[in-house]
Amino acid sequence: MERILATYRITAPESESRARAQALAVEQSVEMPLSAITDEAVLRDVVATVESISPQAKGFDVVLGIAPSTTGREASQLMNMIFGNCSMQPEVELIDVELPDGFAKSFPGPRYGVEGIRTVTGVKGRALTCTALKPQGSPIEYLARLARTFTLAGIDVIKDDHGIANQAIHPFEQRVVAVQKAVSDANRETGGNTIYAPTFSGGGLSLREQARVANDHGVKMALVAPMLVGIPAFVELQVDLAIPVMAHPAFAGATRMAPPVVLGKLFRLFGADATIFPNYGGRFGYSRETCLEITRVAREPSHGMRPALPVPAGGMTVDRVEEMVGDYGADTMLLIGGGLLSAREKLLEKTREFVRKVSL
Amino acid sequence: MERILATYRITAPESESRARAQALAVEQSVEMPLSAITDEAVLRDVVATVESISPQAKGFDVVLGIAPSTTGREASQLMNMIFGNCSMQPEVELIDVELPDGFAKSFPGPRYGVEGIRTVTGVKGRALTCTALKPQGSPIEYLARLARTFTLAGIDVIKDDHGIANQAIHPFEQRVVAVQKAVSDANRETGGNTIYAPTFSGGGLSLREQARVANDHGVKMALVAPMLVGIPAFVELQVDLAIPVMAHPAFAGATRMAPPVVLGKLFRLFGADATIFPNYGGRFGYSRETCLEITRVAREPSHGMRPALPVPAGGMTVDRVEEMVGDYGADTMLLIGGGLLSAREKLLEKTREFVRKVSL
Repeated sequence: MERILATYRITAPESESRARAQALAVEQSVEMPLSAITDEAVLRDVVATVESISPQAKGFDVVLGIAPSTTGREASQLMNMIFGNCSMQPEVELIDVELPDGFAKSFPGPRYGVEGIRTVTGVKGRALTCTALKPQGSPIEYLARLARTFTLAGIDVIKDDHGIANQAIHPFEQRVVAVQKAVSDANRETGGNTIYAPTFSGGGLSLREQARVANDHGVKMALVAPMLVGIPAFVELQVDLAIPVMAHPAFAGATRMAPPVVLGKLFRLFGADATIFPNYGGRFGYSRETCLEITRVAREPSHGMRPALPVPAGGMTVDRVEEMVGDYGADTMLLIGGGLLSAREKLLEKTREFVRKVSL
Repeated sequence: MERILATYRITAPESESRARAQALAVEQSVEMPLSAITDEAVLRDVVATVESISPQAKGFDVVLGIAPSTTGREASQLMNMIFGNCSMQPEVELIDVELPDGFAKSFPGPRYGVEGIRTVTGVKGRALTCTALKPQGSPIEYLARLARTFTLAGIDVIKDDHGIANQAIHPFEQRVVAVQKAVSDANRETGGNTIYAPTFSGGGLSLREQARVANDHGVKMALVAPMLVGIPAFVELQVDLAIPVMAHPAFAGATRMAPPVVLGKLFRLFGADATIFPNYGGRFGYSRETCLEITRVAREPSHGMRPALPVPAGGMTVDRVEEMVGDYGADTMLLIGGGLLSAREKLLEKTREFVRKVSL
């Protein structure tokens, strides 16, 4: 099988580029001096290859060919092979990954993707709207009331704040039952189709129990931060969960892996049906170019996988709806949380304004 | 209960320090405008507090007081609260975390620690020795033969290379059974006490199955990369595993979380009995000061937790044994992999030299 092509940007003098590239190939595969390897098959089939070196403004880019067999076709080991040890080399950044044909089949990919989310929410031909239940630490009744207001306003998806996990004041089961009921009741009143995406958190045992609760109570979407629960747990969760999964980027920015690779390409490979990213001009420093690239990578044709739904967020406001739809098009879900909640007693009206603007 | 004190270094003009600190406190707790919060209890008990701001060479340090209740006393949510969203703000680095009294009890901490590893290996009063089976992709018989040689030489701990996971050529179960047998057989011949630490990888289901195999076959230590398997999975694994756990730093490096916090403090909190770190002067760029701080934090008295055994590694050689023991003292395990394997047909002699030097 062809190699996995991983591209690294190395900030170092170009005179070192050949030696650096070779050292990185060793580090990311056999991690020992090649002179001490006597097995020809290992040298040929296991050691990563240097496919190309190209000069850049500050340093150079190196493309390594990583043998698919070294990943064991499992998520934690794939991450290990593409960015395990070199994560500890501050001058090395992972800027792209290309998978060989057939490799993606070992991973779930989006099981629902853009079309699946459109089916669940009943939204055709326009961008979707999303908001968040906040703040964490609020009584469950408050969160349920908030969810009712958002549902009455006709929001498509209500997610938990990513800070709302399984805390004592709003444990997963009690909260999910109450909020899902509030949403379902309000849907019946309006004839609407709003869905609720609670935050899943913790280890495999907790995730499985949360999946059971969600399945039992008609929850239609899950919010999960792959880097917090762990990427293999994110993959494994999908076995128990017959609903779309929205990936949250918390803890994922910490890594010197380019955001389009992580939030776009890898989260999609691992099964994200929708992927939240911090939009430019909000509380985070991503550029417009980076954000456009995340959305492009999340949706582009790739190994027969379904496209994932990009979800710009992070300090967005209703004023920016038109701009975001202009940037990202209709196959997008706009997430506005604090920007709606700031309306306080006018929350219903403000949310309706959001919904209306997206429908135009 | 008192707050969790998290210290962040922010690279920004000092004139912005007050506003930046307040924004970070909001980001890492309620993530919404405070003006939209009407619940006094949330404002008082949930919103993170700015405890101090102190100017630094390039920017300033901010200490936030994070409410323990927001973590749900669970590992993924703790990481979320201390570095979830701000991981996406490149100007913010997490440089320390102090836990309030009693908080650590929610996490395993080292269950064996330095003393437990000394008991298992029978090593008293000197540093321990460790090496690695490499390269990945080698037939199991080769790895078992290598393990036999290391055991005959009297190494204390033989770990799998962190790249050896559950791949087709050396699946976990077959490999572990063969290598453990080779080690046990050689121990019987020498009267020695060498132990084997295989790499655990994958999701919760895989980890549990691997724990079963390890328990069934008398394996006495586990090697796990918490950031690859996911921190909650790392914690959960310990329920199934009655042997010491050695943490590997793969995928944990250069995360804009200071290495002493991650590899020393947090991995210990989450249960690492031993923690591998890239020693200075090897293939990674950590300074001597950073390495000394990792070892200090791993072993210092902290919330009644057992000390964790620091394991310097990453391109070390037998020449540096004296220096490493001088730096880190006897409660240390020296890990030399490639530096031994480079001896090729003189592997037994070279390994004996390593063992002898540490025993002096």
